[in-house]
Amino acid sequence: MEQFVLASASPRRRELLLQIGLPFSVIPSQVEEVFENGKSPEELSILLAKKKAQAVVSTLPENFWVLGVDTFIWHKDQFIGKPKDREEARRMLKAFSGSTHKVISGLALVHKRNRWITDYSCTMVTFRDLTEKELEWYLDTEEWAGVAGAYRIQEKAACFINQIDGSFSNVMGLPIHTFYDMLRRSNYPFP
Amino acid sequence: MEQFVLASASPRRRELLLQIGLPFSVIPSQVEEVFENGKSPEELSILLAKKKAQAVVSTLPENFWVLGVDTFIWHKDQFIGKPKDREEARRMLKAFSGSTHKVISGLALVHKRNRWITDYSCTMVTFRDLTEKELEWYLDTEEWAGVAGAYRIQEKAACFINQIDGSFSNVMGLPIHTFYDMLRRSNYPFP
Repeated sequence: MEQFVLASASPRRRELLLQIGLPFSVIPSQVEEVFENGKSPEELSILLAKKKAQAVVSTLPENFWVLGVDTFIWHKDQFIGKPKDREEARRMLKAFSGSTHKVISGLALVHKRNRWITDYSCTMVTFRDLTEKELEWYLDTEEWAGVAGAYRIQEKAACFINQIDGSFSNVMGLPIHTFYDMLRRSNYPFP
Repeated sequence: MEQFVLASASPRRRELLLQIGLPFSVIPSQVEEVFENGKSPEELSILLAKKKAQAVVSTLPENFWVLGVDTFIWHKDQFIGKPKDREEARRMLKAFSGSTHKVISGLALVHKRNRWITDYSCTMVTFRDLTEKELEWYLDTEEWAGVAGAYRIQEKAACFINQIDGSFSNVMGLPIHTFYDMLRRSNYPFP
């Protein structure tokens, strides 16, 4: 009997998996996100996702499948992670104002402890110009805390986003279509 | 004191408005959706949204602002509304399989009973090829009931959608960014 494990503590990822009706449990991995230079954002996202899945699968029996995911933002040749504080959130959002950035999620699915499928998803997200008043209003909501790029597309930041090209769920932290495709390619019994 | 009213019974639209934190109440309008020929999809979406807002605002005092919204799908030169039954849902989803369709929402905001702002939003949605098994699985979920085009992008249909270009909330039934922009243009006190 196959068992599915999400190796992430993110409530948004949990919500997205619940949405498609796949039975799963959650075992967060404790891997530190290190943004190494010399790798493309896509390679790095997969590498981090593999590390997360590896840390969890090594502790489990063979019938467990584990999904590791890593999401970050790539903007003006820089990795953007989670803001440390309100000041850093302000800087990130100011940088996004009136421009387009890329959201990347790497996915790594491992089963029988050593069979890997990996993939990634990219979405381009365009913010319109933010006024100072809007920026402060958004910072006051505290939605920026604990998320890459300091905004949550599924909540109040939707007011500021003109356009996305790609997957919406990717921007929430788990690209559902890419993930579902990986399940199919690996013959996981779903649906 | 301004009061905001959503002239729609849709739980998805309510959810999207809640998400941005705007205080509002709901008064559904009883306007029938008639897909008239000789109009562009964009014109028609605005016309239907205006009818919905008009039906509600005429019953209210002057300090009420009313938003009417109409969302439908345009595919292969045809209007696609809500499916009547499972058979029609199957036909719609088969038609979307492996192709791109357009989702259009018209918005009409009225205040002081006769000052109008209107706008619309279009999103291109691409489905990958669906297998017969996937189609039946999806029909079994009953997510197709009561929604234009017989799918809900924010639930299990996310598995089948490769790509969107435009607004995600538009596909859920209320394009948040377009709506927020209308509020700003009309100097509504939000945020």
